[in-house]
Amino acid sequence: MSLFTAKPSETVSSLGELKLIAAIRRWLGSASPATPFGIGDDCAVLPASPRRQLVTVDPVIYGKHFDDSASPRAVGEKLLKRNLSDIAAMGGRPRAAVVALALDASISTRWLAAFYRGLASTSRRYRVPIVGGDVSHQTDGFAATLTLIGEVYGNRVLTRKGAKNGDWIYVTGALGGSILGHHHRFTPRLDEGRWLAARHEVRSMMDLSDGLAKDLAALTPKGSVPALAAAAIPVSAAAVRLARASGKTALHHALADGEDYELLFTLAARTDQAAFESAWKRKFPSTRLSRLGRFASASFPGHLNLHAIHGYEHLR
Amino acid sequence: MSLFTAKPSETVSSLGELKLIAAIRRWLGSASPATPFGIGDDCAVLPASPRRQLVTVDPVIYGKHFDDSASPRAVGEKLLKRNLSDIAAMGGRPRAAVVALALDASISTRWLAAFYRGLASTSRRYRVPIVGGDVSHQTDGFAATLTLIGEVYGNRVLTRKGAKNGDWIYVTGALGGSILGHHHRFTPRLDEGRWLAARHEVRSMMDLSDGLAKDLAALTPKGSVPALAAAAIPVSAAAVRLARASGKTALHHALADGEDYELLFTLAARTDQAAFESAWKRKFPSTRLSRLGRFASASFPGHLNLHAIHGYEHLR
Repeated sequence: MSLFTAKPSETVSSLGELKLIAAIRRWLGSASPATPFGIGDDCAVLPASPRRQLVTVDPVIYGKHFDDSASPRAVGEKLLKRNLSDIAAMGGRPRAAVVALALDASISTRWLAAFYRGLASTSRRYRVPIVGGDVSHQTDGFAATLTLIGEVYGNRVLTRKGAKNGDWIYVTGALGGSILGHHHRFTPRLDEGRWLAARHEVRSMMDLSDGLAKDLAALTPKGSVPALAAAAIPVSAAAVRLARASGKTALHHALADGEDYELLFTLAARTDQAAFESAWKRKFPSTRLSRLGRFASASFPGHLNLHAIHGYEHLR
Repeated sequence: MSLFTAKPSETVSSLGELKLIAAIRRWLGSASPATPFGIGDDCAVLPASPRRQLVTVDPVIYGKHFDDSASPRAVGEKLLKRNLSDIAAMGGRPRAAVVALALDASISTRWLAAFYRGLASTSRRYRVPIVGGDVSHQTDGFAATLTLIGEVYGNRVLTRKGAKNGDWIYVTGALGGSILGHHHRFTPRLDEGRWLAARHEVRSMMDLSDGLAKDLAALTPKGSVPALAAAAIPVSAAAVRLARASGKTALHHALADGEDYELLFTLAARTDQAAFESAWKRKFPSTRLSRLGRFASASFPGHLNLHAIHGYEHLR
């Protein structure tokens, strides 16, 4: 379905502001709670909570994050899921979201309805109400920016800082080739993130959005390098398929491709890894876990050279 | 200063993502706290609070909310202030903000630096740290979307619903002609909003963004109409100046122009208005307060006909 329409009567601008907002509430349905906890006042109101709050924001932009080949439903789902993945990466739980739309005059109402229905279905699945937003006109294109409020479960916020030299590096799932479908179909690792944040041997965590080779730098302690073996990298079937067409290796795709939305985390050096890994297997029998290597003082021949690989670079 | 530059070396895309984010943190300076309470992790973390939380989101978009005649500093200030006005309208206090940027490749680094310095100066003035954000590429133009988290002071959230037939209608400040400068120079009515929310005779409140004639509908109880006298409307000097050029009356501008960012609120019918108004004058000697009229069962000749006036309509 195309984002744009040439028929004026099928555009969102033909609805006007008030009817468009009423339509958005209808499309969201039960995903949009009643005022003052939802759309319709100057601010949305969230009930008090005794916990530390988490805030993250990520958009989907036409021509950048999706094009006419994407289903509008999938675009709406992805908008919320990419933000859920950030909450998962801190070991938190999501609470509520607001969405700001910037639309040009020729956006199709049908497209937007399907987009909101996708957003609403993900909102219900993860129990994250859409509590507010904004609709603005812009000269060209479509951007939807979602801000997600979450909170920590216990006393602990698991950040990117905390790994030490000698610590082990783990990743969930399989990597690379996300563009072939995973970037829409992925499941944010909320349950895994919560479980990991509660274990004190886990020292740091993030979600993979720009590719392992680039993202791992954020967890690497000063004076250390990641010593990874190529055989330990969980290469996805999509990365293998993509490699057939791209002329690059499947391993390259696993290291460099963006949008894996998997959890990358580190385990304190002295941890009993076998015990940790069996505990994982009992708790998450269907989520693959790979030990990639550890942080070391220097790299040795046989280790992967991540510097040679460029992850996804924004604004280039 | 122009938003765009033809010299590739002066564009934000010449910086690349990592250097741009480092530059943004430098421009924000003390307005951007250290991780995990600020930029640099998957989510920002807000300290726990025992109060209900408020959330609002509003953007500034090139070609819609500003153009090349606006100073980038003023655009950055306005982005935060329009959201602060929404927090003021619920009687709350601001806590923290996140900013999502969507930029095309030819945006000037100098422009963006001045924009962030303006944002930072407003952030410090109102003690609202900028705790996170996102930077994304888009095909064309510039949009900055700010989500502001706030909280209520006491137990009360003052919403748009609550006025009854017979209740009095008040507005702060003077209205109309905002485009001549007020839309950049206004002061969000945070102190006034807090004071009003603590008074139980105040039954409903909102901020004026699309013009009194349009916005008042949101406070009007079912079965009532606002009965306002033309002489009671506080017409701004800017509305008078604008009327000289526009061929419309100054009163029309006061009723129809957007971006007043004043507080519109209602007072229970049985309130001692004189006592309320003197209490206001003691507390806010320099903030004008006008009693516009009241909600009535029917309109009478001599009352303003607001239906004949169209406020600011988005998406048209």
